[in-house]
Amino acid sequence: MRLATVRTPHGTRAAVQRDSTWVLLKDNNLSSLFSHADWRSQAEKALGETEHEDIQLADAELHTPLPNAAKIVCCGLNYRDHIVETGRDVPEYPTLFAKYADTQIGPNDQIEVGDDSIQVDWEAELAVIVGSPIRRATRAQATAAILGYTVANDVSYRDWQGRTLQWFQGKAWAETTPIGPVVVTADELDPAAGLEIKSEIDGVVMQQSNTRELVFDAADLVAYVSQFTPLAPGDIVLTGTPGGVGLGMRPQRWLQHGEVLRTSIEGIGELRNRISMSTTHEGENQS
Amino acid sequence: MRLATVRTPHGTRAAVQRDSTWVLLKDNNLSSLFSHADWRSQAEKALGETEHEDIQLADAELHTPLPNAAKIVCCGLNYRDHIVETGRDVPEYPTLFAKYADTQIGPNDQIEVGDDSIQVDWEAELAVIVGSPIRRATRAQATAAILGYTVANDVSYRDWQGRTLQWFQGKAWAETTPIGPVVVTADELDPAAGLEIKSEIDGVVMQQSNTRELVFDAADLVAYVSQFTPLAPGDIVLTGTPGGVGLGMRPQRWLQHGEVLRTSIEGIGELRNRISMSTTHEGENQS
Repeated sequence: MRLATVRTPHGTRAAVQRDSTWVLLKDNNLSSLFSHADWRSQAEKALGETEHEDIQLADAELHTPLPNAAKIVCCGLNYRDHIVETGRDVPEYPTLFAKYADTQIGPNDQIEVGDDSIQVDWEAELAVIVGSPIRRATRAQATAAILGYTVANDVSYRDWQGRTLQWFQGKAWAETTPIGPVVVTADELDPAAGLEIKSEIDGVVMQQSNTRELVFDAADLVAYVSQFTPLAPGDIVLTGTPGGVGLGMRPQRWLQHGEVLRTSIEGIGELRNRISMSTTHEGENQS
Repeated sequence: MRLATVRTPHGTRAAVQRDSTWVLLKDNNLSSLFSHADWRSQAEKALGETEHEDIQLADAELHTPLPNAAKIVCCGLNYRDHIVETGRDVPEYPTLFAKYADTQIGPNDQIEVGDDSIQVDWEAELAVIVGSPIRRATRAQATAAILGYTVANDVSYRDWQGRTLQWFQGKAWAETTPIGPVVVTADELDPAAGLEIKSEIDGVVMQQSNTRELVFDAADLVAYVSQFTPLAPGDIVLTGTPGGVGLGMRPQRWLQHGEVLRTSIEGIGELRNRISMSTTHEGENQS
């Protein structure tokens, strides 16, 4: 099943995909839909009703799928190929930090940097959506609690991130993290078996790896996080980014005003986000 | 004005202090009360009504004051005396990380560590309560947006905190952060002018400093955090801890089963929290 939060002239609505249409559900978004234990049967019922309100996929403007996610836990340093390439050891424990729900924007929204940062970097990531309440889960319990997956870009303001040892202030900027376009349920997709993950700027590939390279996969991370904090339906775990970010380039390379950041994962879809910055900082990349 | 969230046989209630009683308000807690722009006039009205439902201070069991805080932003490395003592430079920027609302417990609740950690440390902190919605605030705007203050202990599981570079997983354990006992409004208290802050274990003083030693004071921190994330009524900013934590002792010293952690700030009050741990780890302190 493929689900989304769709923008309509009357506000946002949760929706489930049927062929080339979004069938609209009663809830205003997927955060609200997934809070109902019977959300799946609600969605299946709507799919079976031909008179249901719908919008053509091609006409739909998509919102961030889970605008009210209570917890967004993020993992860093988690792609094996990137870790090996940088000469580091494979970590024993996941490196974790938090974001707030209001960091999120829609899959095609502009990233409004303005004057806030001149070192705006990209981090293509697989996002895991939690489907049931869990605490202190085993790997098997965590696997069963995963509702599905979507795409995120953990856009990072490196100038702020590098001010102190803790990354939070470079990662928690309001409305800088595109997520979407759709949530694909776990029965239709197996990231551990391998999905291509990619980011591009204006069509030039920056990151290209595969989710099978994750050191801690979706189930590992959900189980680990649930040891210290309860997770609930609609919570999100970001799984970290592969090599190829601007911070690691020599010379370093940052996103510029007007550039389009494309982030995609095989079997889910893509984010396309234009960067809007104060143009007084144009040409800050070293060349 | 001194406010609290009081436990009653019918659930929790927001309350305002009149002499030796808590006058109960309609809202279930201070998170809910502070979400009303006119909360202060509601509280003043209740104080003026002699027939209002109340509980003797001595009989009241206090809950964590702001159980639904949407954002709890914490600062590390922020006491000048401690920084100088450790030979570090005074930092240019505050070191920040996040906690979730469900990390909180009441001012006299037990800290249920169980088997989760054997390196449980204490961090007495001044907590700042935000009173109005702010974003990109100046210092003057931040000052005006501070509703009041309370006491917190950012109890930290150092074994988890030290697993990776990011502190979050040692700080975000559910139900480990005592906060309270009361919120004292900003018109009654000026931490920048100096309030004694202290922690004790079983009556032995571990930390003793003064809030005038804060490098980034309450207004600085609220203004800084509001640059990247919007703050709303009932959000909390923890301002960091002075020297004297177990991590810094030689030999290191951790909280043990049955010990009582007392945390106090002059003019606000004190937290008293007993530690409950699996006793199989007793005697893990080096001696």
